[in-house]
Amino acid sequence: MFKAIIFDLDNTLFESTELVKRARVEASGALINAGLPARSSEEVYKKLSKIVLEYGSNYPKHFSRLCREYGIKSKPEIIAAGMVAYHNVKISQLHLFPKANEILMELAKSDTRLALITTGNPIKQWEKIIRLNIKQYFDFISVLDDKKKEDKIPEYKRFMRKFGLRPDEVLCVGDRPDQEIYFGNKLGMKTVRILQGRHKDEKPKEKLCKATYAIRDFEELKKHL
Amino acid sequence: MFKAIIFDLDNTLFESTELVKRARVEASGALINAGLPARSSEEVYKKLSKIVLEYGSNYPKHFSRLCREYGIKSKPEIIAAGMVAYHNVKISQLHLFPKANEILMELAKSDTRLALITTGNPIKQWEKIIRLNIKQYFDFISVLDDKKKEDKIPEYKRFMRKFGLRPDEVLCVGDRPDQEIYFGNKLGMKTVRILQGRHKDEKPKEKLCKATYAIRDFEELKKHL
Repeated sequence: MFKAIIFDLDNTLFESTELVKRARVEASGALINAGLPARSSEEVYKKLSKIVLEYGSNYPKHFSRLCREYGIKSKPEIIAAGMVAYHNVKISQLHLFPKANEILMELAKSDTRLALITTGNPIKQWEKIIRLNIKQYFDFISVLDDKKKEDKIPEYKRFMRKFGLRPDEVLCVGDRPDQEIYFGNKLGMKTVRILQGRHKDEKPKEKLCKATYAIRDFEELKKHL
Repeated sequence: MFKAIIFDLDNTLFESTELVKRARVEASGALINAGLPARSSEEVYKKLSKIVLEYGSNYPKHFSRLCREYGIKSKPEIIAAGMVAYHNVKISQLHLFPKANEILMELAKSDTRLALITTGNPIKQWEKIIRLNIKQYFDFISVLDDKKKEDKIPEYKRFMRKFGLRPDEVLCVGDRPDQEIYFGNKLGMKTVRILQGRHKDEKPKEKLCKATYAIRDFEELKKHL
């Protein structure tokens, strides 16, 4: 039995990669409907994904850039159409992985200490936590700014200090071999890698990136608690 | 019979003032739940309304200001809670006035030329047009930036030029005595004032601010077409 579990958020508690993809596909269609002179929504989707890769996901002017790529002036009519379509998907299709709610609830009722430690734009990450309605399950929530990704280890340590935990009493759950798994292993925790999202097929770069257990979905987590 | 009708958007085609109020009330409660140290949501609502009045409705940091007013550092957890509550109301409760859809549809099927000329943040105004799903009814849509409010007359003229209309063939519908009503009258149009929203009880400042007709709700518009 572990005394505590540290969870990552995106692609660990919910399907983030697919959700973003669906939102971008929907936005691409809406942009064309609103007047973007593109040949197909697949083409727009590809260009959009390239822009996000280049400028980062928190850059606020993806759609304006897209207009420029198509040689037109950025029009509010087009930008708003893309935004509405994107947000409609991101809001209406944001759900926890199957069984995640039940498992978190069960753990929260037990003596296990639960931490949610995630990186990203703090307001956007909190928006997800609020919309997923999961704040109440955790004893410790920490959202680290994208720019300080290397700071996850100090946060893991802060959590352990706060609740008087040793690393061997903690299970660390995440989807990224070189993030949660690496950090957890480095501190001497047991680690669980969820094979979901865009890191699903990523090979571990070194021994510390290899998780103690690998599971295909959240439900399998039960086996390792 | 009028050959054309110019519509304003907020408080003319939908109830904007009440919607914003409900969104702010909801946000105020959510901010307290998320940790804003306030005595009551009424108190938060009042402070928030004052901030919006002072900094304008398109200022992006209303909730951060609010945190500062309560002597705490702006936390992403609190900001996100306010934003989610605010947007949930603004999106789920955005509806056209009763009968507005039927009347616009009927007019669009007739020979009457329809214009939608509104002021505000262009992307936010377009977001409303898209979410209300009314773009298809209009022959002419123009969103003027807040800063150029005095430019509504040139837009009215541009619409008339485009469709070869004389002012006496145009009906101008809006909720503001000193905006749509004044501009329409000044150009020699017939004007309809909808008594809705925060200008409902406003007395006309001068003769040109007095509408040809005043109606309580959109349905009554039929009488004057």
